[in-house]
Amino acid sequence: MSSSQLQEFLAREFPEIGGLDLRVEHVDERCIRVRLPAHESTLRPGGTISGPTMFTLADVCVYLLVLAQIGPVALAVTTSVGMNFLRKPAPGDLIAEGELLKLGSRLAVGHVRIHAEGSQELVADASLTYSIPPR
Amino acid sequence: MSSSQLQEFLAREFPEIGGLDLRVEHVDERCIRVRLPAHESTLRPGGTISGPTMFTLADVCVYLLVLAQIGPVALAVTTSVGMNFLRKPAPGDLIAEGELLKLGSRLAVGHVRIHAEGSQELVADASLTYSIPPR
Amino acid sequence: MSSSQLQEFLAREFPEIGGLDLRVEHVDERCIRVRLPAHESTLRPGGTISGPTMFTLADVCVYLLVLAQIGPVALAVTTSVGMNFLRKPAPGDLIAEGELLKLGSRLAVGHVRIHAEGSQELVADASLTYSIPPR
Amino acid sequence: MSSSQLQEFLAREFPEIGGLDLRVEHVDERCIRVRLPAHESTLRPGGTISGPTMFTLADVCVYLLVLAQIGPVALAVTTSVGMNFLRKPAPGDLIAEGELLKLGSRLAVGHVRIHAEGSQELVADASLTYSIPPR
Repeated sequence: MSSSQLQEFLAREFPEIGGLDLRVEHVDERCIRVRLPAHESTLRPGGTISGPTMFTLADVCVYLLVLAQIGPVALAVTTSVGMNFLRKPAPGDLIAEGELLKLGSRLAVGHVRIHAEGSQELVADASLTYSIPPR
Repeated sequence: MSSSQLQEFLAREFPEIGGLDLRVEHVDERCIRVRLPAHESTLRPGGTISGPTMFTLADVCVYLLVLAQIGPVALAVTTSVGMNFLRKPAPGDLIAEGELLKLGSRLAVGHVRIHAEGSQELVADASLTYSIPPR
Repeated sequence: MSSSQLQEFLAREFPEIGGLDLRVEHVDERCIRVRLPAHESTLRPGGTISGPTMFTLADVCVYLLVLAQIGPVALAVTTSVGMNFLRKPAPGDLIAEGELLKLGSRLAVGHVRIHAEGSQELVADASLTYSIPPR
Repeated sequence: MSSSQLQEFLAREFPEIGGLDLRVEHVDERCIRVRLPAHESTLRPGGTISGPTMFTLADVCVYLLVLAQIGPVALAVTTSVGMNFLRKPAPGDLIAEGELLKLGSRLAVGHVRIHAEGSQELVADASLTYSIPPR
């Protein structure tokens, strides 16, 4: 699936996170980049972006990377997540860079790093595992 | 802090998740129970509750358990999370049962188990670590 | 499989950790208890038990709990682990108490808590996932 | 600390894993590479390297990377680990490539990827957090 196909899939299957306005900027066989635009609604008091919002960004990012390889299987499900919150993000857009570590017949694993646009410092990293239904 | 104090703290400091209508049902020195009432808005297509919603429930649950011991320190922050999604939840309210595993001077760690009301089967479990600011 | 059958399986299939002298003290459909006797060889300078030794204890504990349900399938493999090291253990034996959170057709998940004998305080906790081969 | 200083520190402070013959091949301000030579003693039946051995490799790798920055503080301790076991490694040496994600005043976080020499495919990845004593 291409970036634009993933974007359409996201809008159609995950309307409940439409308010985040996530944008798939790049995808290939190993990597994906997803942008979370700065919006008032995702800011916490003090200007921080909430943990659950970053979790959503990480989860969607790797999920779409897996679907880009195997097609729009809405039944793939997240089975486990390990996530570190490293720093308070600077104001502005967040960029999630996902990488596929394994694509097996039953499990897929990806790693994602989140940083603020224009900054090299990581805000968070996560490893996520998805169970893939029999094909 | 008591259940009602935690409930007020939650409403005041985390208005962005007010829509989840989380309810602190019990808290003591080691344990907490938080309820996520069933609402149309948290359901995904197919009747499932989304991963990010369950992450929010787990994070808030242990965060409030830590605050119940150390007082309303809004600056305590989540530093790492390990979470497993075990089963699709049955329709209805979700119950998160949190337990404090460690309360150190710098780090607090809790474990939380989420199940649907009336069911013994776990929907998810998570371990969360919080960094506690110098007091 | 019973405690004694698990003990025999452990000795036969995992000779490389025989030096730890792990003992399966109890197992049933949901829970297991495994003891790590205090030995000079597992102590680090300062009297601490090393992280890798506690990892081994946690992994073996939940692995045997899974095998107790599905039989001696040596091909079940650990796929992911989240583990917290909470306190330096007091001298003496360590006790690992494992609990089965999920036993699916493809994945099993267990949680384990490690404490020193005679102490209520947790030394470590871990959640482990195993991939189960098709049966 | 340089590669050779880390190597000496490892031999002096961690004699119990001397049998693994770990070799620090490179270290700089952000990255480290540690080699686990193939030895009969670390192989499991079937030629696999055990999970605990890979855990040890990952833990030592990131621990030394942190010490390379802050000096030989033997009191830094592992507080949490998230690790995925992705594939059975091919026979031969294992290479662990560690990267520092955060070096704060209280916590350091690193990510490590393990692969067999000569192979691009990851055998395991892990994120590890260390608590740094007050300096």
